[in-house]
Amino acid sequence: MARSYAQAPITTVSAANGIEYAYREVGEGGVPLVLLIHFRGNLDNWDPALVDALAQRRRVIAFDNTGVGGSSGRTPSTITQMAMDAIAFTDALDLVQIDVLGFSLGSFVAQEIALIRPALVRRVVLASSAPQGAPGMHGWAHWVIDAVGEPEIDPARVLDVFYTQSPESRSAGEKAMGRMFTRTELDAPTTWQTRHAQYDAVSAWGVPNFSLLERVTAIQAPVFVANGDNDPMILPRYSHLLAGLIPQARLKIYPDSAHGFLFQHHAEFADDVEAFLTDPR
Amino acid sequence: MARSYAQAPITTVSAANGIEYAYREVGEGGVPLVLLIHFRGNLDNWDPALVDALAQRRRVIAFDNTGVGGSSGRTPSTITQMAMDAIAFTDALDLVQIDVLGFSLGSFVAQEIALIRPALVRRVVLASSAPQGAPGMHGWAHWVIDAVGEPEIDPARVLDVFYTQSPESRSAGEKAMGRMFTRTELDAPTTWQTRHAQYDAVSAWGVPNFSLLERVTAIQAPVFVANGDNDPMILPRYSHLLAGLIPQARLKIYPDSAHGFLFQHHAEFADDVEAFLTDPR
Repeated sequence: MARSYAQAPITTVSAANGIEYAYREVGEGGVPLVLLIHFRGNLDNWDPALVDALAQRRRVIAFDNTGVGGSSGRTPSTITQMAMDAIAFTDALDLVQIDVLGFSLGSFVAQEIALIRPALVRRVVLASSAPQGAPGMHGWAHWVIDAVGEPEIDPARVLDVFYTQSPESRSAGEKAMGRMFTRTELDAPTTWQTRHAQYDAVSAWGVPNFSLLERVTAIQAPVFVANGDNDPMILPRYSHLLAGLIPQARLKIYPDSAHGFLFQHHAEFADDVEAFLTDPR
Repeated sequence: MARSYAQAPITTVSAANGIEYAYREVGEGGVPLVLLIHFRGNLDNWDPALVDALAQRRRVIAFDNTGVGGSSGRTPSTITQMAMDAIAFTDALDLVQIDVLGFSLGSFVAQEIALIRPALVRRVVLASSAPQGAPGMHGWAHWVIDAVGEPEIDPARVLDVFYTQSPESRSAGEKAMGRMFTRTELDAPTTWQTRHAQYDAVSAWGVPNFSLLERVTAIQAPVFVANGDNDPMILPRYSHLLAGLIPQARLKIYPDSAHGFLFQHHAEFADDVEAFLTDPR
């Protein structure tokens, strides 16, 4: 087993749906924590500093969903299908109970997993998240999708979305990117097909529909909702909305941070996740 | 003009709807701030320490809505009618623009006023509030309505709802009650008819209906949402829900406090309201 996420090799597993899933894991013990990454992200987009902190006392598994990075198949264009595919992956690993940490697009998938197969999910962490049907988020702000949606991804423009304009946040962002991509074995890049399919899925999720806000009230697992106070991609008010809709959710908004708050504040966020996952309540 | 709310006399004004409204006012200047009180409350249920702090730089007006306390008529049993009646009162005073601070039941009325006559309302403060249709609040918890809904109101049981069990919160509550009721000219008590009509209105407001959550997104005025972190009457998660639904809302949750957080933290809350009302944005 790898000691740190930066050294963790890519492993593959064949699932019953015919997909060969690529994943990396670190740590051991406890209920496995499955990570669900953001729009266009692959295994390399998890900050090793965060994953290693999370893996101190538990098994942590990052994977590429269907069609993403090193996994086979075509990326589906609905959050529901992404959730079913993620469940196929956990089934392939014979996981009977998991905690999930979904980030951005991954947090939408995490909600769906908890709704589709509640018995699988013990606890849920939603980072930079929003409930399906929330008003005002459809398709993201123009400058945001322009910054992260181009064929060639410009790291400087990604920094604009993931970090604030403060020197502290920018510096933290540059360090996180450095940690992500200093590994020797990189994952396969995500494709243009993945970009389109994921954007379609996110846009459908963002079509305003107040009656759909009821869906998350069915999540029985304890939920921890977290966001940066200046996230331009998924506004903090959607974290408030989730915390208002889910009866027992806890909420934390991290200061001077944006979409990448969980990498910027990796030590504090990992501590908060650990406290949440081990809370006896 | 009265120097302090504790000395402010009760004045009456005849409105076009035939109701004689009882009110007290203190302070002068600026856009008048109209206060909307809680379930079964009358003019005496505003803590003079809070009202005086709010009135440092502005005219502050507390009034009894139709059928309540010293005002004539029968209390209506819908929030919408209460809002229309409140507008009749402001019309009777020739107010062309107001700020509103609604507390609990009064915060529901404040939302309706902002929706029925948006041009009247410059800024809105919602204290211990919830949007119409929010899940899980219908009729209040049994022990809460038992504590505040009996024919004879027991101050000790009111303290249980308005303040936490901490010595600091209880002591603040006892002091606030002392400040409220040491005046010489007391308002007429609220009646059993008012109790029933207001409870019916609050219960109808709390019938879960996710499609109605959309209503508050039409509020154009800036909104400040505030609550105590342990309010058992209107849970803090409904403040999160409001902050998630209203595009530009600001939110503050006050520590170690319950339904009466605004009296317990009167100096801090008054400062926050002042900052909100004078914010150039």
